[in-house]
Amino acid sequence: MNERDALRALAADLPHAGDDAAVVDDTVITTDMLHERTDFPPGTTRYTAGWRAVGASLSDVAAMGATATAAVAVYADAAFDDDRLDRFIAGAVDVCEAVDAEYVGGDLDTHDEFTAASTAVGDATDAGVVTRSGARPGDALCVTGEWGRSAAALRLFHSDSDEAVERANDLFRFTPRVADGVALAGSATAMMDSSDGLARSLHQLAEASEVGFELDRDRVPVHPAVDEVAEADERFELAAHFGEDFELVCAVPEAAVERAREACPGGLTRVGRVVDGGVTADGDPLPDRGYTHG
Amino acid sequence: MNERDALRALAADLPHAGDDAAVVDDTVITTDMLHERTDFPPGTTRYTAGWRAVGASLSDVAAMGATATAAVAVYADAAFDDDRLDRFIAGAVDVCEAVDAEYVGGDLDTHDEFTAASTAVGDATDAGVVTRSGARPGDALCVTGEWGRSAAALRLFHSDSDEAVERANDLFRFTPRVADGVALAGSATAMMDSSDGLARSLHQLAEASEVGFELDRDRVPVHPAVDEVAEADERFELAAHFGEDFELVCAVPEAAVERAREACPGGLTRVGRVVDGGVTADGDPLPDRGYTHG
Repeated sequence: MNERDALRALAADLPHAGDDAAVVDDTVITTDMLHERTDFPPGTTRYTAGWRAVGASLSDVAAMGATATAAVAVYADAAFDDDRLDRFIAGAVDVCEAVDAEYVGGDLDTHDEFTAASTAVGDATDAGVVTRSGARPGDALCVTGEWGRSAAALRLFHSDSDEAVERANDLFRFTPRVADGVALAGSATAMMDSSDGLARSLHQLAEASEVGFELDRDRVPVHPAVDEVAEADERFELAAHFGEDFELVCAVPEAAVERAREACPGGLTRVGRVVDGGVTADGDPLPDRGYTHG
Repeated sequence: MNERDALRALAADLPHAGDDAAVVDDTVITTDMLHERTDFPPGTTRYTAGWRAVGASLSDVAAMGATATAAVAVYADAAFDDDRLDRFIAGAVDVCEAVDAEYVGGDLDTHDEFTAASTAVGDATDAGVVTRSGARPGDALCVTGEWGRSAAALRLFHSDSDEAVERANDLFRFTPRVADGVALAGSATAMMDSSDGLARSLHQLAEASEVGFELDRDRVPVHPAVDEVAEADERFELAAHFGEDFELVCAVPEAAVERAREACPGGLTRVGRVVDGGVTADGDPLPDRGYTHG
């Protein structure tokens, strides 16, 4: 059984397991594990790792349209270096501050490979949580922010220049779209974050909502860093299939798009529409291909 | 820096980090990571592992005197075997049910070594949370349950008999003392769970509360399984220094002990008293020695 099948099996057993976070009463809770080999390329600072590990969980809270209240993390490493641990915590604290949440500590564990397990909790707004399953044909397909940021960072991490690696770290420290998620809570009919990439997210939303999507390739907002590291013909590939951008993908009724756009501090772009079935980009089938979390 | 020093450094930076769980408004949150090499001896079933991983976090919620509401876990393994994952989830679901909490899912991750990261959340009662820092000289020192259970299980895991291993699994599946913690919330002046063993817990409580403890060795309730696997002269060692029993250790004002005992479903035993300083057992210094989480 691969990870996606296993997650599907999980979803069949548990309430809410198909969404980005679980919901108990009005509390939203989500947990993730990241580790060195697959999630933190060489050159990733512990500050960036702390930011990103906790940020990934805050992004899941955002995807539910909930406010983020607190996060915890387990820091596991072969040895506990004072400075590296401090930097990890500083990153965790700062990403929480960026979304008005509180980093409240965690646990340490000895582990051969540097591993971070993070959990975030949040509160549903009065509008209730947004799941993946409510998109309706005719809704606009919208995304927050700019895409390809993490793909660009990964190429920069592989560079020999210290400056490029520093820039890669900057790009890796995304702002979790909590404020945007809350702004969308009253209007989005379905929402998720894009940890597996735009293409794969669309397939997942389509399956959960039993709808399809028509994506307009040229409307996908591409992060300027992509043009620094990639040829023009790679732009869409990096923006749509790489993943790990932690932006929001959502369906919004046409009449609500304009107001939602004004309310989203991270920007909201209409990139297509919800249809009865099939996931296409400019009329061609969009492959369900993206980042598979290792 | 070893793990205890690193935890001390964490505690200096973060609110509540010295307690078993963090507190945000009235929500209690705690996270742990367990892994195969140090936490799950050969013979531990995935059902027991799921129970124990999530149970450890629920025990931390209990130690704050809070009700447990929900738990999540990350299941990381080299491969996702359908049956093993199902059993892990069943254990997680069942330990949550045992304390009236809800297991709400989690995440999967690929990892060479089987690793489980669990997080539990809870709500403070109207009596507020109980920390490690309020014990006063003159209070009674009390513990829940029976001790040495996990030490006995570990010896049974090393046996060649299937029956012994099955019994070890039973012993490993402790009941988190959530109901007891809630019952003690109105009266205990300081409390923690015993994941590092009774002796080490007393030293930690003593430091946090700036007091000492006099332990009466013969009053420590020893689990009957200890006598099955150990000589009489090892009883105290296994009950007080091994750890991983996930019982509660607390200070309770004398006048409240009797009522607290009646309210604790897991049993409450007076095992000594809070004094001005020093940690002793029958008058001799009790070494700060126990299980160090690896």
